[in-house]
Amino acid sequence: MIRVGVVGYGYWGPNLVRNFSETPGATVAAVCDLNADRLARVKTRHPSVRVTGDFDGLISDKNIDAVVIATPVRTHFELAMKALRGGKHVLVEKPLVDSSARAKRLIDEARKRRRVLMVDHTFVYTAAVRKIRELVTSRELGRLYYYDSVRINLGLFQHDVNVLWDLAVHDLAIMDYVLGKSPTTVSATGLAHVNGRPENIAYLTCYFENGLIAHFHVNWLAPVKIRQTLISGDRKMIVYDDLEPDEKIRVYDRGVEITKQNVYDVLVSYRTGDAWLPKLDRTEALSVEAAHFIECIAKNKQPLTGGEAGLRVIRILEAANRSLAAKGRPVKV
Amino acid sequence: MIRVGVVGYGYWGPNLVRNFSETPGATVAAVCDLNADRLARVKTRHPSVRVTGDFDGLISDKNIDAVVIATPVRTHFELAMKALRGGKHVLVEKPLVDSSARAKRLIDEARKRRRVLMVDHTFVYTAAVRKIRELVTSRELGRLYYYDSVRINLGLFQHDVNVLWDLAVHDLAIMDYVLGKSPTTVSATGLAHVNGRPENIAYLTCYFENGLIAHFHVNWLAPVKIRQTLISGDRKMIVYDDLEPDEKIRVYDRGVEITKQNVYDVLVSYRTGDAWLPKLDRTEALSVEAAHFIECIAKNKQPLTGGEAGLRVIRILEAANRSLAAKGRPVKV
Amino acid sequence: MIRVGVVGYGYWGPNLVRNFSETPGATVAAVCDLNADRLARVKTRHPSVRVTGDFDGLISDKNIDAVVIATPVRTHFELAMKALRGGKHVLVEKPLVDSSARAKRLIDEARKRRRVLMVDHTFVYTAAVRKIRELVTSRELGRLYYYDSVRINLGLFQHDVNVLWDLAVHDLAIMDYVLGKSPTTVSATGLAHVNGRPENIAYLTCYFENGLIAHFHVNWLAPVKIRQTLISGDRKMIVYDDLEPDEKIRVYDRGVEITKQNVYDVLVSYRTGDAWLPKLDRTEALSVEAAHFIECIAKNKQPLTGGEAGLRVIRILEAANRSLAAKGRPVKV
Amino acid sequence: MIRVGVVGYGYWGPNLVRNFSETPGATVAAVCDLNADRLARVKTRHPSVRVTGDFDGLISDKNIDAVVIATPVRTHFELAMKALRGGKHVLVEKPLVDSSARAKRLIDEARKRRRVLMVDHTFVYTAAVRKIRELVTSRELGRLYYYDSVRINLGLFQHDVNVLWDLAVHDLAIMDYVLGKSPTTVSATGLAHVNGRPENIAYLTCYFENGLIAHFHVNWLAPVKIRQTLISGDRKMIVYDDLEPDEKIRVYDRGVEITKQNVYDVLVSYRTGDAWLPKLDRTEALSVEAAHFIECIAKNKQPLTGGEAGLRVIRILEAANRSLAAKGRPVKV
Repeated sequence: MIRVGVVGYGYWGPNLVRNFSETPGATVAAVCDLNADRLARVKTRHPSVRVTGDFDGLISDKNIDAVVIATPVRTHFELAMKALRGGKHVLVEKPLVDSSARAKRLIDEARKRRRVLMVDHTFVYTAAVRKIRELVTSRELGRLYYYDSVRINLGLFQHDVNVLWDLAVHDLAIMDYVLGKSPTTVSATGLAHVNGRPENIAYLTCYFENGLIAHFHVNWLAPVKIRQTLISGDRKMIVYDDLEPDEKIRVYDRGVEITKQNVYDVLVSYRTGDAWLPKLDRTEALSVEAAHFIECIAKNKQPLTGGEAGLRVIRILEAANRSLAAKGRPVKV
Repeated sequence: MIRVGVVGYGYWGPNLVRNFSETPGATVAAVCDLNADRLARVKTRHPSVRVTGDFDGLISDKNIDAVVIATPVRTHFELAMKALRGGKHVLVEKPLVDSSARAKRLIDEARKRRRVLMVDHTFVYTAAVRKIRELVTSRELGRLYYYDSVRINLGLFQHDVNVLWDLAVHDLAIMDYVLGKSPTTVSATGLAHVNGRPENIAYLTCYFENGLIAHFHVNWLAPVKIRQTLISGDRKMIVYDDLEPDEKIRVYDRGVEITKQNVYDVLVSYRTGDAWLPKLDRTEALSVEAAHFIECIAKNKQPLTGGEAGLRVIRILEAANRSLAAKGRPVKV
Repeated sequence: MIRVGVVGYGYWGPNLVRNFSETPGATVAAVCDLNADRLARVKTRHPSVRVTGDFDGLISDKNIDAVVIATPVRTHFELAMKALRGGKHVLVEKPLVDSSARAKRLIDEARKRRRVLMVDHTFVYTAAVRKIRELVTSRELGRLYYYDSVRINLGLFQHDVNVLWDLAVHDLAIMDYVLGKSPTTVSATGLAHVNGRPENIAYLTCYFENGLIAHFHVNWLAPVKIRQTLISGDRKMIVYDDLEPDEKIRVYDRGVEITKQNVYDVLVSYRTGDAWLPKLDRTEALSVEAAHFIECIAKNKQPLTGGEAGLRVIRILEAANRSLAAKGRPVKV
Repeated sequence: MIRVGVVGYGYWGPNLVRNFSETPGATVAAVCDLNADRLARVKTRHPSVRVTGDFDGLISDKNIDAVVIATPVRTHFELAMKALRGGKHVLVEKPLVDSSARAKRLIDEARKRRRVLMVDHTFVYTAAVRKIRELVTSRELGRLYYYDSVRINLGLFQHDVNVLWDLAVHDLAIMDYVLGKSPTTVSATGLAHVNGRPENIAYLTCYFENGLIAHFHVNWLAPVKIRQTLISGDRKMIVYDDLEPDEKIRVYDRGVEITKQNVYDVLVSYRTGDAWLPKLDRTEALSVEAAHFIECIAKNKQPLTGGEAGLRVIRILEAANRSLAAKGRPVKV
């Protein structure tokens, strides 16, 4: 039985506690938060779970095997590092940390101590995203042309991270998992409309080798909620709409036919066929993810979204921030 | 009665002939095309209209007052210039010409000869876009934050202009009319997926003064058709969906409330109220536009979409092309 | 070459003339209408077509092989009967006539004179409806459970036929073709909201043998336009949305699993699988229909929507009218 | 403080317990269920609530003021009657009971003992339905023409009540509240597709005085989920889509203009204006309802959805069942 301590019981913590409580092979041994009201709420909902405001005590507790961190981003590094040094396996909410240098130090520490370091890229554990990866890696889409994502709504303005680090991080994590490769160059644009706050609207382009391009639109100030991703190859195209309750993915047998006419010219014509809406199972992503974390610990396996995945996403975000400050100037990742 | 000659009877020409035929004060005197089949089609549909393959003859015809040009972009300059020099009023399909230098020469020629030079920015004459301009100029939206447009579908790959010049030109024309000001800097990214063809996917960011940003996504290779524009101010927000048959515009009473807490901090909170779908009249845009062109000629008025509007849009497209070639490097307009 | 005379150039006539003009093996020889303006419009659009206000002259014209009737319903019988007696093949707009007795007399006359009598059940010639029939007859849906159709909008109030005869006739024609069988009993409800006008809202239930039920909602007074049909079998289910530009049909691999538990009880559980959007060709239905009419004449074949199909639909409408007058009392067909 | 006992902790009970727990002026004193697992679940979630399998003990408990019944329909009457006789206030899940005779006996008992008897017509307490009632009673819609509702999905087949008693009961409760009057005659059609189970698809028409008609389509076997109601008057029309997360209600300024031409004829023409999406508050309906029940007890008020409302709905359902068995024969309510 893996005994889990959850740190942070704000927005996401309750979901983590609930899911780890129901994960076979795991038990939630303790919840740590600095806020007494939140701890009282844990007691009401999970009377058998120990609550504490003392993180260091949690780390030195021999009865805790793994620590799950769901606190503000700026605290991730210190908490995760302490936990690893305390010999705990660690799962950290996204983004892993706030810089690639710190991400590397966590990865090194975890490797040295042979502990599991995993980042909570939740969407990777949804049925929709797993189905998309299957379609991409099986070459069903053919050669990839582009990846285009929109994640906008009237959302919470964050204090210390901009909209890329808050929202695009989800899409970059999905893209990292689906494509299995990283961009070489990025260009980002955007603006902060509230004085003293970070950018609330941003656009990010990622250039890959071999003629693949990805683009992300993230926005905290949109009148409507949109969560739509297009992934297009030369054989098929996917539309992934995360707001659809059931039919999140459509696979279109559409594209262009390119016929070489002669050395100078090609003929480009349309191709449209059937579309297909694969059935997706409805297991909660966080439940799949919790089970995966526990399995990685129990069987000494590498997680799908280990520290390296977190690092790859942060590298893109860091380059994006530099480009954003320079109105789109291309920046190497 | 203004006697109109239409040049080019391909995709758009038949709509021009049909609409000018029904415009009070105007008559279609002649249609010119190099293709005999097309001219035969004119004869079947409009038996009383003279057809010809000789553009120069059309220009020297004293019975023609105005020339409407709907030919490939690369031919616009020469045809429009000849027509102006022949003393004709001229309406040119968008984009006006293929460079700002040529646009300026046309504008100068038209001014010198006191002729109307107008560009067919069709969307400016739709009820939806006129309503949007009304909402923007009346300050109903408050201070503008952003303009975001998506115009994608499985579209015809053009030979000589890229997807910005083919599709974004529509949105830039709309934006020029709605905002009444031009961006200072642009950043564009994109890719050509077919060898020897221009870019088929592109993203364009326009920076304005005073914290306004605009973004355009255009794509010839999308599995689904989307024509959606978001325009957001600090008081209200518009969603304009051109594919909706009736309810093209929604005005949302949504936004953020920014409360100054102290010199160091602000509080940002949501605000959501009713939404409103204004009724739009269903007159065909081209019919409004044809009447406007005739009225400008008859009453010696400046058209809403004169040569200067065409020039402003081309300047953005030229800057975008330079940025696109440099993977998003910011370029001054 | 089959020489066609079109009678009636109001709402639907222009579409008929245009399509028969382009049908191989056919030519539109004459158009007959009592209204001079309409005949002038024919002359402008189709200068080579003879126009006339004299129906009897058309009938006795040896140069006419077939007559297409697109006049008000109450005139169908007389015009079609005269045409058949004049030795013409006849295509009549839906509904065929205004009573089953008259439909039978037309059918008899056509049979006696070996002429083609066809009714313009246009939807039968759409790619969507042909695909649905294919799915039903191939038993892809399994045993049929129900057919449910909604056809509503803010529509034209008719003077002399109620909303069932104006709108439900389309759906009954589709159902007749798709199911290949007729209901045994109907129940209809509805109301007339405008004094002196026929019913503008109506609901019609059709009972078939073997546990199949069909229902139709038609309405001239709806705030939104809906054209949706559900067809459900024990293996698969279809959603047919005629307003979708491309994806009119979705086939759902959904249903219930019925497991016999014992003699007294069954277990009913859900089954959901993938969905599928078949590609449909975009040929205009009326063009397919015109070609079919010409082929039936040339090759002496029975049309898909012959007089008998028209009669079957009218029988349902007659029974529906009787039930409607009696607030839903079941009426045998 | 009103002390509430909740009976039945199956599908709906947990929502009742949660909401009454958070209702000011109320406390959940006990939960009663025959199933030990369910009672254990109560203990985990609400450690301070007493659990019991003994209903009669609950009734005789002096510390319980009110009983909330969320058990199968066939048990409602006996449990509610016992509770009233035990001097408790009673809230019963919909439908109130399974016959109008029994509903009347409960109403009489409650009146005699001066206890609150309320039925859980949940939708009446939603912001959407309250807004609709406001629009109807303020005559914003003008004279009402029709009420049309569709409530279909791939739903749970019930054992002992048909789809009208399971699903249409929601819509009849909404209609009763919104219109404030009852139909005079009903006609219902439908079918049972699974042997030994009640009807799984049904259509119900309600005739009112003064030219108002209502229709309901309910279906447990639909491939898609639809929850849509149209309410049309001679001035405005409402579309209420309960699946829309935010914009559940649209008010259309649409209709027909009826102009008297002469004694024999009227001219009917369209009228279309703006549409409007009122903002709705997002308070959970059950929370509003729980507070209302408590307020009625505390202040001795008549509930919005008292026993009489339950009775009116059951009368329609009883008449509908008789009509359904006779294939639509009209039945007086």
